[in-house]
Amino acid sequence: MSEIRKDPIVNRWVIIATDRKNRPNDFSVYEENEDLAHCPFCEGNEIMTTPEITAIRRASSTPNSEGWDLRVIPNKFPALRVENELKQRKTGIYESLSATGAHELIIESPDHKKDLHQFSEEKISSILTTIKNRILDLKNDIRLLHIMIFKNVGPKAGATLKHPHFQLIAMPVIPKRAMEELGCSRDYFKTNKKCVFCDIIKQETESGRRIIDSGGEFVSFCPYASRFPFETWIIPKNHSADFSGIEDHEIKDLSRILKNTISKLHRAIPDFQYNLLIHTSPLQSDFSESFHWHIEIFPRIVKTAGFEWGTGFFINSTPPEEAAEFLREIQN
Amino acid sequence: MSEIRKDPIVNRWVIIATDRKNRPNDFSVYEENEDLAHCPFCEGNEIMTTPEITAIRRASSTPNSEGWDLRVIPNKFPALRVENELKQRKTGIYESLSATGAHELIIESPDHKKDLHQFSEEKISSILTTIKNRILDLKNDIRLLHIMIFKNVGPKAGATLKHPHFQLIAMPVIPKRAMEELGCSRDYFKTNKKCVFCDIIKQETESGRRIIDSGGEFVSFCPYASRFPFETWIIPKNHSADFSGIEDHEIKDLSRILKNTISKLHRAIPDFQYNLLIHTSPLQSDFSESFHWHIEIFPRIVKTAGFEWGTGFFINSTPPEEAAEFLREIQN
Repeated sequence: MSEIRKDPIVNRWVIIATDRKNRPNDFSVYEENEDLAHCPFCEGNEIMTTPEITAIRRASSTPNSEGWDLRVIPNKFPALRVENELKQRKTGIYESLSATGAHELIIESPDHKKDLHQFSEEKISSILTTIKNRILDLKNDIRLLHIMIFKNVGPKAGATLKHPHFQLIAMPVIPKRAMEELGCSRDYFKTNKKCVFCDIIKQETESGRRIIDSGGEFVSFCPYASRFPFETWIIPKNHSADFSGIEDHEIKDLSRILKNTISKLHRAIPDFQYNLLIHTSPLQSDFSESFHWHIEIFPRIVKTAGFEWGTGFFINSTPPEEAAEFLREIQN
Repeated sequence: MSEIRKDPIVNRWVIIATDRKNRPNDFSVYEENEDLAHCPFCEGNEIMTTPEITAIRRASSTPNSEGWDLRVIPNKFPALRVENELKQRKTGIYESLSATGAHELIIESPDHKKDLHQFSEEKISSILTTIKNRILDLKNDIRLLHIMIFKNVGPKAGATLKHPHFQLIAMPVIPKRAMEELGCSRDYFKTNKKCVFCDIIKQETESGRRIIDSGGEFVSFCPYASRFPFETWIIPKNHSADFSGIEDHEIKDLSRILKNTISKLHRAIPDFQYNLLIHTSPLQSDFSESFHWHIEIFPRIVKTAGFEWGTGFFINSTPPEEAAEFLREIQN
């Protein structure tokens, strides 16, 4: 039986996912030359996945068959399940919750090999709109307090399947790193009566040194205290805490800057592999004044060693000013 | 010019180490079959390293030449330097410090290939005593607030050199993850008038389910909310916040349990690669009542993906009870 356990020292939540023990991709090697006949996310292999939650389908096609442009499915080996009743358990100093939540996969396209920047802006917009709609739907389940949307590209980034997909995990707790960002930015707001992210955007735009692209409603930049070489953030210029509040014209702008930024990173970094994370506000609590949603992209160029894990104190040998200058000058 | 930068949102410190840019091992591939003639840590190659700080030498040998059993040297490509004057700088909302600190390497033995468990208990004791003495020495520099001692074994753990060594980084700030442990355990102490680590030891010893080895003055166990499969901690049974306060008979016991635990992990996990971290109290502030020093060992079996990075919410498919049972039953 899977459960969510709390570390009694720092209150870090961990999913102890016994159900995933026999997951075929665990501990396995990522195969670059996958057999397309056996990729569960390729068109024609719909029977290999769990039934779809939603899909963008071409006229006259039926669910869970060929003829789709995008599919959303529950993870076959979910870390958390909506069917599980939310129960708390205490054993001495230890505390756990049942593994209640949602774990969904957004299969971006039938195309097995494309990364995000290789899609048209319209296609990227349809992916982002689907993510927005999934958040709005899951928000209705009041047991779910937080949602994480992310994408792992390449084996170095922890991907086990090559076929392009986003993942979404909705959980019954606000995880530690999310709470840290939410809490610290609320403290900043209380002290300064301003959003810290808005202040960063202001200072970055004025200096320009770490900016990669600032056309339209969004800015992409390498943050001042980048943990990784070529770490890149994309953030809306106008204050907004909740990704699911994004409007159509903003989705259009975001698609353009995402495509441009990821293209540049691919050109700058040979065999570019990365994690992309959407940090958005919690589902059931109000951080609308102090939080500001954003996307973080972590290129997986260097291995993270014991020092970083043990201290949260990162050593980055590429100053973000140099990374940003390099990326700015690349013409797509 | 390297500097230590503070993230303005969550106050995370990052070393932007421009000096390390031309570090030969950066981005490089770890070579399993290294040419021993070119390993800077092998005997006879002392000229390839920076001059030694201290060493355990055989009779009649001279510093920086052959005839040693253990050497401590400053890192040739240090993230932080003691020579740097400690200065603070503010630029708008951003804050940085000069890269003041120490970055040392403890070359454990002239033997290029041995991992810690392959040394005798006496040899392990001499390594631990050296680490203790380096902490006591660096504590005298009141600019240094915290120290991290760690060891990366294998390329998956971020090691760039195979030759067995510990690293030590002393820094002018208390890094975020360390402060989190220190702060949370102090809160627990204030509420419960007890050390949370002592309470964990008590509950773990009573239940026995997650214990690997509990002979002598130390316990090794898989923590309740393990982030990684086979995550293992070693902790002194008697309350003590500061590793550098360890006494000779305790070093002897620690050497035995370290050797036994790492041997078991090697037998349990094929191609076992890991990070080992010593969490000890800060150098210039008093956490003696509430903190409890300990060693954390992270086997690098699974890749850490975007979800874990983005949320601090780990998914672990091996329950610690099963890992501990498996390790307990291995006879060395």
